[in-house]
Amino acid sequence: MSVLPIVKGLMQGDRRSLARAISIVDNHEPESRQIIKEIFERTGKARTVGFTGPGGAGKSSLLGRLIPECQALGHKVAVLAVDPTSPITGGAILGDRVRMLGSLDDEKVFMRSMASRGAVGGVSKSLRNAIRVLDAAGYDLILVESVGAGQLEIEITKVVDLTVVLFTPNTGDNVQAVKAGLTEVGDIYVVNKADIDGAGPLYNILVDMIGDTERRPPILKTSAKTGKGVRELAQHIDKLLEERSINYKVRERKMLEDELKNMVSDIVSQKVASMLKENKKYSAFIDKLAKKEIDPYMAADKVAASLFK
Amino acid sequence: MSVLPIVKGLMQGDRRSLARAISIVDNHEPESRQIIKEIFERTGKARTVGFTGPGGAGKSSLLGRLIPECQALGHKVAVLAVDPTSPITGGAILGDRVRMLGSLDDEKVFMRSMASRGAVGGVSKSLRNAIRVLDAAGYDLILVESVGAGQLEIEITKVVDLTVVLFTPNTGDNVQAVKAGLTEVGDIYVVNKADIDGAGPLYNILVDMIGDTERRPPILKTSAKTGKGVRELAQHIDKLLEERSINYKVRERKMLEDELKNMVSDIVSQKVASMLKENKKYSAFIDKLAKKEIDPYMAADKVAASLFK
Repeated sequence: MSVLPIVKGLMQGDRRSLARAISIVDNHEPESRQIIKEIFERTGKARTVGFTGPGGAGKSSLLGRLIPECQALGHKVAVLAVDPTSPITGGAILGDRVRMLGSLDDEKVFMRSMASRGAVGGVSKSLRNAIRVLDAAGYDLILVESVGAGQLEIEITKVVDLTVVLFTPNTGDNVQAVKAGLTEVGDIYVVNKADIDGAGPLYNILVDMIGDTERRPPILKTSAKTGKGVRELAQHIDKLLEERSINYKVRERKMLEDELKNMVSDIVSQKVASMLKENKKYSAFIDKLAKKEIDPYMAADKVAASLFK
Repeated sequence: MSVLPIVKGLMQGDRRSLARAISIVDNHEPESRQIIKEIFERTGKARTVGFTGPGGAGKSSLLGRLIPECQALGHKVAVLAVDPTSPITGGAILGDRVRMLGSLDDEKVFMRSMASRGAVGGVSKSLRNAIRVLDAAGYDLILVESVGAGQLEIEITKVVDLTVVLFTPNTGDNVQAVKAGLTEVGDIYVVNKADIDGAGPLYNILVDMIGDTERRPPILKTSAKTGKGVRELAQHIDKLLEERSINYKVRERKMLEDELKNMVSDIVSQKVASMLKENKKYSAFIDKLAKKEIDPYMAADKVAASLFK
């Protein structure tokens, strides 16, 4: 299949081509590499902001308010929703989100949820390439919403330029958030649903926890319900992205290095997997393991050595 | 360091040696392989049960009730608590748990929380080896409690013999649980906190969702508060483990195969990483990437090819 019509379409602003291209890179279809090859030269302009936090923190509603504010600041905005908590069923959550953001002008913002099946590295790869597709299509501000916490969340923060961590007074156990390591990855912290009870104490807890670092990231209060504080958040995002643009080339190089390392590891792993499939020694070692004649470390060493002879 | 005193100690029931051995394998210290080498022959007797479910489902309290019931059925019980939501700070949650389970006879049950730092594969490896240590120490029923949902949870279900999925009426958004793929991994489902409002509707939702598969897993109701249903859960676990013991050798072989594949991949990845470090071509390719003279796919292919020449 030639990807040229899709690439041409997405560059001309055709939303269907754009959606198709993101599907292809999200699912790691063989055409991914051709698409990236065609568009790569045109990428590197978009800036990306990740939104993370415990489930129920109201990320989608806040984004619904934030998008128009970012547009008012002159950005062409796209949203990618990554749902890493859904490894088996895939994340068919786009419908929910579109409904939630129903009041927006659909033509001005592009939204897509990513299935992000597979391992940690798979999500990063999907996301990096989906960002490139949007970048090539002219979106200059890409908001990445992710659900839940954990290893995958942390992976996502490595792919975006800026991370906004959302908390809300009614996510219940605030200790949970602390445990999740979320207070260590944010460039901006937001107490969302600031209109409800408990927002004040939560704000104070966050100030206590984050306040003793050398350069404290901003801690803001927003209400997706009333819209309060959302403009300020948009302005903070813009300001931080601006500040970082000075060092952007350094960061880009670091990100490309990570990506290349991951991609090389992928290729090598695939090669190893297919070598193992045909390796008779491998099967013999499993027999020995099952009989406890050899331990797993020794078996692995021997198999690895046999692959590199 | 010789691990022999530790190995000897844990086999004689010395709890301090046991704790030390688990720390070593959990942190992938160099001594891990010696410990596993020494004990591997004595492993394969313990059975393992994973407990998973959304945060707040009351896993720890339920385990506090379940442990004596399992002991009454003749088991020597150990608990491993894995907290995959804590990739950065590590999971220092043992204190909480011990407090929660304070009413238990400490000498009869061994509890340990695992830091489980690092990637998905790292947790599986830690867990497999910690299970082996407990197995060699004579614990025949190992309960593995994990926090949250997502990729890591699914990994854990692959390492244990049986998975119990817990839901509770007050985890709020039940749709969240469905999205997390948790209704596809359970061998037993439990509606915990069955004494509170909403337990009935939640039970019905679960029956609807799980009921249309061919061999429906049991769906039980428990209350960690009153103890109701906990004995029945212990009996179901015992019965299912018994049924599975017939095919246990097949399953063990499959698990060993997975483990060997992961371990070989690890070795190869480490080799690749150290090769890349010294590879001048690699650095040149990152320069080219940053200048957009080459795309990431092509760069990765070329670097991988240069490693295998």
